[in-house]
Amino acid sequence: MATDAINRLVAALNRLPGIGAKSARRIALDMLTWDTDAVRELSEVMIDVKTRVKRCSICFNLTEGDPCEVCTHPRRDASQVMVVDYVGDLLAVERTGLYRGHYHVLDGRISPLDGISPEDLNIQGLLDRVRQGVIQEVILANGPTVEGDATAQYLAQCLVPLKVKTTQVARGLPVGSDLALADQVTLSRALEGRREY
Amino acid sequence: MATDAINRLVAALNRLPGIGAKSARRIALDMLTWDTDAVRELSEVMIDVKTRVKRCSICFNLTEGDPCEVCTHPRRDASQVMVVDYVGDLLAVERTGLYRGHYHVLDGRISPLDGISPEDLNIQGLLDRVRQGVIQEVILANGPTVEGDATAQYLAQCLVPLKVKTTQVARGLPVGSDLALADQVTLSRALEGRREY
Repeated sequence: MATDAINRLVAALNRLPGIGAKSARRIALDMLTWDTDAVRELSEVMIDVKTRVKRCSICFNLTEGDPCEVCTHPRRDASQVMVVDYVGDLLAVERTGLYRGHYHVLDGRISPLDGISPEDLNIQGLLDRVRQGVIQEVILANGPTVEGDATAQYLAQCLVPLKVKTTQVARGLPVGSDLALADQVTLSRALEGRREY
Repeated sequence: MATDAINRLVAALNRLPGIGAKSARRIALDMLTWDTDAVRELSEVMIDVKTRVKRCSICFNLTEGDPCEVCTHPRRDASQVMVVDYVGDLLAVERTGLYRGHYHVLDGRISPLDGISPEDLNIQGLLDRVRQGVIQEVILANGPTVEGDATAQYLAQCLVPLKVKTTQVARGLPVGSDLALADQVTLSRALEGRREY
């Protein structure tokens, strides 16, 4: 039941990541209580983002101009490049405000099970950037998963002949968590990575 | 950071019910990977729903024609009317496929704390419908909360002079749940409402 128009909206919202059938229904019914102008505004913003936002030709960050704000920023350190799996990871690092170098977005992780091989990722572009000689350190910040580790390992191997310093962000206990609840792998990584106090 | 267009989209998505800042970011980044046509389709469906869906002038259900499908259905029982707080509740009952009567949507619950009094709800319309004499039974299906109970109690009082049979849907243990985890109020309602086996 419900009307066709509502069912179509629910089906469309259901395709958004993390939105199940119940949430989609809840959002659709809520939207019916909005002003038409508010709905029109959201719909325009959605289209706007698709037409205005592109990929940076250097680091594959999302950007409205090319190259992106990070690559063109006069006070960011072009000698450091942090490799991340997805743009969302880049944005998370930017939110900390602690990193002042450049980035390289791979747009995925090596995953033979999902049919994703190194050729499917933006790896060649990274190696080309390193060969230009400006980059002094490559910081591997791939996700702490089996696929992320495999990707980092592959990249590290590719970088050896280029003789660039290669580091990886620390694995350990997340701050604010409980030691008793940490899984074995995280605990063993935290122990391996222990430092003098 | 992120681009202005992305930030605007995240802010707009964040206004949807149940979508926090993190989910909004995730949806926005996902949307950037869609075809422009897919985004355009979602945005058109959103506008479409606002322009096509209205309220039924009899029961306040959402509908594309007036009166709604339920009120005009030839095989639904007009002598029964189920009173619900919100259209979402009506849709939930319809999904069970078990109810063949009519509805009346109040569009809220009496809540003095939120400044919602009986005059703010579609109560007068319900009483007018009952006065027409077709309705034999009013089924109170207000939400099982303090506000829902207050609303049901108010309605029951209003209906007394109209001499119409008034019932309320049962309160008790939700099927599939655990007796040990039920709260005291639900347990006491389940006990009160016990029936011979």
